[in-house]
Amino acid sequence: MTTPTAPLEASDLDQVRELAAQLRVDSIRASSSAGSGHPTSSMSAADLLAVLQARHLRYDWDRPDAPGNDHLIFSKGHASPLLYAVHKAAGVVSDEELMSGYRRFDHRLEGHPTPVLPGVDVATGSLGQGLPDGVGIALSGRHLEHAPYRVWVLCGDSELAEGSMWEAFDKASHYGLTNLVTIVDVNRLGQRGPTDLGWDMDAYRARVEAFGARALVIDGHDIAEIDEALARADEPGDRPLVILARTVKGKGYAPIEDQEDRHGKPLSQDEAAEAVQGLGGERNLLVRGPRPPEITREEPAVDSLRMPTFPVGEEVATRKAYGAGLVALGRADPRVVALDGEVSNSTGAGDFAEQLPDRFFEMFIAEQQMVAAATGLSVRGHIPFSSSFAAFLTRAADFLRMAPVSRVDLRMVGSHAGVEIGADGPSQMGLEDLALFAAIQGSTVLYPADGTSTVALVERMAATSGVSYLRTTRGAYPGLYEAGEEFPVGGSKTVLSSEDDDVTLIGAGVTLHEALAAGARLADHGIRARVIDAYSVKPLDADGVRAAVAGTGGRVVVAEDHHAEGGLGAAVLAALAQEPIADLHLAHLAVDGVPGSGTGPELLAWAGIDAAHIAAAAEGLLEG
Amino acid sequence: MTTPTAPLEASDLDQVRELAAQLRVDSIRASSSAGSGHPTSSMSAADLLAVLQARHLRYDWDRPDAPGNDHLIFSKGHASPLLYAVHKAAGVVSDEELMSGYRRFDHRLEGHPTPVLPGVDVATGSLGQGLPDGVGIALSGRHLEHAPYRVWVLCGDSELAEGSMWEAFDKASHYGLTNLVTIVDVNRLGQRGPTDLGWDMDAYRARVEAFGARALVIDGHDIAEIDEALARADEPGDRPLVILARTVKGKGYAPIEDQEDRHGKPLSQDEAAEAVQGLGGERNLLVRGPRPPEITREEPAVDSLRMPTFPVGEEVATRKAYGAGLVALGRADPRVVALDGEVSNSTGAGDFAEQLPDRFFEMFIAEQQMVAAATGLSVRGHIPFSSSFAAFLTRAADFLRMAPVSRVDLRMVGSHAGVEIGADGPSQMGLEDLALFAAIQGSTVLYPADGTSTVALVERMAATSGVSYLRTTRGAYPGLYEAGEEFPVGGSKTVLSSEDDDVTLIGAGVTLHEALAAGARLADHGIRARVIDAYSVKPLDADGVRAAVAGTGGRVVVAEDHHAEGGLGAAVLAALAQEPIADLHLAHLAVDGVPGSGTGPELLAWAGIDAAHIAAAAEGLLEG
Repeated sequence: MTTPTAPLEASDLDQVRELAAQLRVDSIRASSSAGSGHPTSSMSAADLLAVLQARHLRYDWDRPDAPGNDHLIFSKGHASPLLYAVHKAAGVVSDEELMSGYRRFDHRLEGHPTPVLPGVDVATGSLGQGLPDGVGIALSGRHLEHAPYRVWVLCGDSELAEGSMWEAFDKASHYGLTNLVTIVDVNRLGQRGPTDLGWDMDAYRARVEAFGARALVIDGHDIAEIDEALARADEPGDRPLVILARTVKGKGYAPIEDQEDRHGKPLSQDEAAEAVQGLGGERNLLVRGPRPPEITREEPAVDSLRMPTFPVGEEVATRKAYGAGLVALGRADPRVVALDGEVSNSTGAGDFAEQLPDRFFEMFIAEQQMVAAATGLSVRGHIPFSSSFAAFLTRAADFLRMAPVSRVDLRMVGSHAGVEIGADGPSQMGLEDLALFAAIQGSTVLYPADGTSTVALVERMAATSGVSYLRTTRGAYPGLYEAGEEFPVGGSKTVLSSEDDDVTLIGAGVTLHEALAAGARLADHGIRARVIDAYSVKPLDADGVRAAVAGTGGRVVVAEDHHAEGGLGAAVLAALAQEPIADLHLAHLAVDGVPGSGTGPELLAWAGIDAAHIAAAAEGLLEG
Repeated sequence: MTTPTAPLEASDLDQVRELAAQLRVDSIRASSSAGSGHPTSSMSAADLLAVLQARHLRYDWDRPDAPGNDHLIFSKGHASPLLYAVHKAAGVVSDEELMSGYRRFDHRLEGHPTPVLPGVDVATGSLGQGLPDGVGIALSGRHLEHAPYRVWVLCGDSELAEGSMWEAFDKASHYGLTNLVTIVDVNRLGQRGPTDLGWDMDAYRARVEAFGARALVIDGHDIAEIDEALARADEPGDRPLVILARTVKGKGYAPIEDQEDRHGKPLSQDEAAEAVQGLGGERNLLVRGPRPPEITREEPAVDSLRMPTFPVGEEVATRKAYGAGLVALGRADPRVVALDGEVSNSTGAGDFAEQLPDRFFEMFIAEQQMVAAATGLSVRGHIPFSSSFAAFLTRAADFLRMAPVSRVDLRMVGSHAGVEIGADGPSQMGLEDLALFAAIQGSTVLYPADGTSTVALVERMAATSGVSYLRTTRGAYPGLYEAGEEFPVGGSKTVLSSEDDDVTLIGAGVTLHEALAAGARLADHGIRARVIDAYSVKPLDADGVRAAVAGTGGRVVVAEDHHAEGGLGAAVLAALAQEPIADLHLAHLAVDGVPGSGTGPELLAWAGIDAAHIAAAAEGLLEG
């Protein structure tokens, strides 16, 4: 492995200029060798990164997990050649790897950065996410760990069009995140042409200042000016620093500078050779900037858990049980933190906010930032639970999609699921949330029907990796299970059965209660129903479901307070297809059409998912 | 029907004050009678609406579809009691309906406004959507219709925490939407407590001004000051007007004014009686404000359509074919408009931008605003097509969810689907998009494999109601179909078959090409494969799929460049479950795990969805 051999003297700004040239050269070489990538977007920010790496980023490159390390996030993830050039200059990526691994299969230098490369905290590449993620990391440093690390985020100017960036600026100032430094590479050009604001640095300054930042406008190619600006990260004050750097896309090779049609295109072999020569040729400077402070993180003192209990038969809303369970979990484990989108009095998270306020973060009505903050908190080792109405979690779909790419563990809780909520109407009804969460890579989807199962599943979520989702219900329903009952992920419960059942009814949440009522109705007609609580929608208890259906003549009714696509019914179909049942007779009851307002029972009836419809469907299968 | 009988003299501001009192009284009465709703959020904005309705809103209440009418959007949809009180004052909702219909089942006065009530353009209630929708309506008036109507949007202060609002302010100023007036009801209190900025009117002013608005800060309870502010909507200038009104939540009944715990709670019977009395009792003022200008909309002159053709065997990327088809459609039908999220050179929409620039709207990297603008354009009768990478359309999931509630027709196009894209890595790979779009109420999901089918489906989309989605592929693949072939929604094509096939292979998009290659491999082994192009994922050709599977011994392999949940495989399972096949042997090949970078073929192989894996799965079924 060829590692850089010539240590750079960071106190000499001319040597920093040499580093900048190296970063440009390596950005060009890496992308040209791969045949794709974004050299021009890297070249505009090379001077910014050279100064940051050499003189300001406190980072132990041999220990990327050192808790005192600053964090460096490329929110403009397409500038990955520059990031990897920085890693080469730090001596942790070889020149060979840069030239042969970038964007190649089964290599860690991916087209956009992901944590498969040590030192990358979160995956970026969906623009407008890196800064919100950085807010989460800075929240921990400022409000939980009280640690001295800083969070440096390199942003593109194009991505300031994403609303999520303004959610981030807003929360950064609201929470006084002076440990967060945003560097915006204002190179004027997006993918298909000029940005909205071009080089109107005054407009950018006005916007970020209005959102509570301390703004510095600089020439992003003046090494001394950059150095001065970055040094101001440590100035006392209560406002986060935003450095607005006017830059030139493709800077360093005149033929491609400030050209509209050079986004995401590597230089040709001839261009690359000329550019590298013009930049002074290849270099192998080794750069180790300032050391991070040595800090130690104490092992969390986890107490024994005492979960609340709920009597069988007593009515409780699962959203309330969630709040009670979360408080108990938080009392036992100091890593547990909670976030909510300004509806904590509805989701149950308000109990946590009240009783453990130091570990609660109000995200106001900014669901994207809520998920991003949870992502950042997960990076720092916390166990975040985030809640809103199930319907409104769809707002953060792109952030949730990126969570498995970032390898973070998020616990999401969506209340007020389905038409059951009644009078508030369709805008507030989560009817697509199961599909959203089930489609996320490696996710877990849980949907309890009573208080006991809710708190048991909250406890499971704390130990579940990846994105896990708990769906809760607005209304109160009777407790079904004795305290202490186990609810493994991937399990199910048979809540009604006899030795010789005629039909299986599968429900979860509110439809489990309807299925039980249907079972009673059917019994009046001499029909024996087996009722399954599919509290674990993903993974579903496929064996249990198949056994139940096979044991009831292949007759099964699935009812869900969700659209027909991507939810409980789809999970049951997938389970049944694994080892097909010879004589399957299936009825899938789900919500079709746009609901209106009404009472919960009226809407469950309208949707055809109440006890009467479940019973009728079962009878239909027996008659058919 | 009791309609208001006492016409109000709008020139008399004291009478406008009477109207404000009536709006408050009716907001209280409606929500108390329903037992739920948001009276306090209505009372804070009652003075604003009274002045607007009586003196500024140019609206023919007898003809809510009159093209010259101003538009009125309650972005703070929870203030529905106030909106319906306005409708009562206009004489289009009776007092009986207000008292017996609000939030009741099968009535049009839903908990949050939807277009089931004439005069409501878009559904609101998911905060942060009404203003972005209004931007779309204003875009049409300013840039397409050149019509004099104005768009008035009442916003809450809480919802300014949503990034989508800042996407809207940004686009409003970028497009010079002086026909858009935003009124922010700054009542300081959200659902669970104080907002981020409280009554810091200077902060709000700085933010909206920085985003290019003309801001006016007013006392939202001073009728004369409100009147003066609203009159400034017609002032010449090039910046949109934002009126920041300092208000008191619950204004008009002292015991509930500015109280934290009164959000979304109706007054008790006693409170309501006292409040109504204090406000001067019930009234039945009839208010008809200024008339709209009479404008006529010409019938669109639709030309005959001449779609581009693509030779069989010649390689073309479906994203390029989309662009060519969209241009042809746009040339034929002036109602067709296009929007893109700053990637039009990748999605194909750039062709439209170049050739029909007057009907192209660059939304920069703001997918939420893109979908909202399309929503507003649909309200005004246009046929919008909106495109980005499939992965990034997830950013707008909540807006897409609301589209069927708003009863609008959106055509969405997602390019760069799946692992096929290769080197750019997982952040850019749409692997959840089919699940997202399939779960939307009433949606249509299309996934063509060649140029001919792409343009045919683009043509179908223009005539498809609801949300329709076209998934396109990055790479170029050979044409499969002769020009002129029909591709009905809900159909499928058998692209390889014999009289006695052994196994059915189902693919769409890139996996159809892999299935065809698998068919050739299998033929080499003496196995006859029937290959189905499931270009219509929702609705799937259930009969066709069942017939094919039944005709090949129940053996079927489904392969998709998408996660296993909610996509093509799920649709096939649902189709097969309708009339179960006795001896089903199904293999479902889909993407599992987090991909990295690589070439398209490397990643298709990694995911187990390439020709080799499809062939191996088919052989496995035959051996099993």
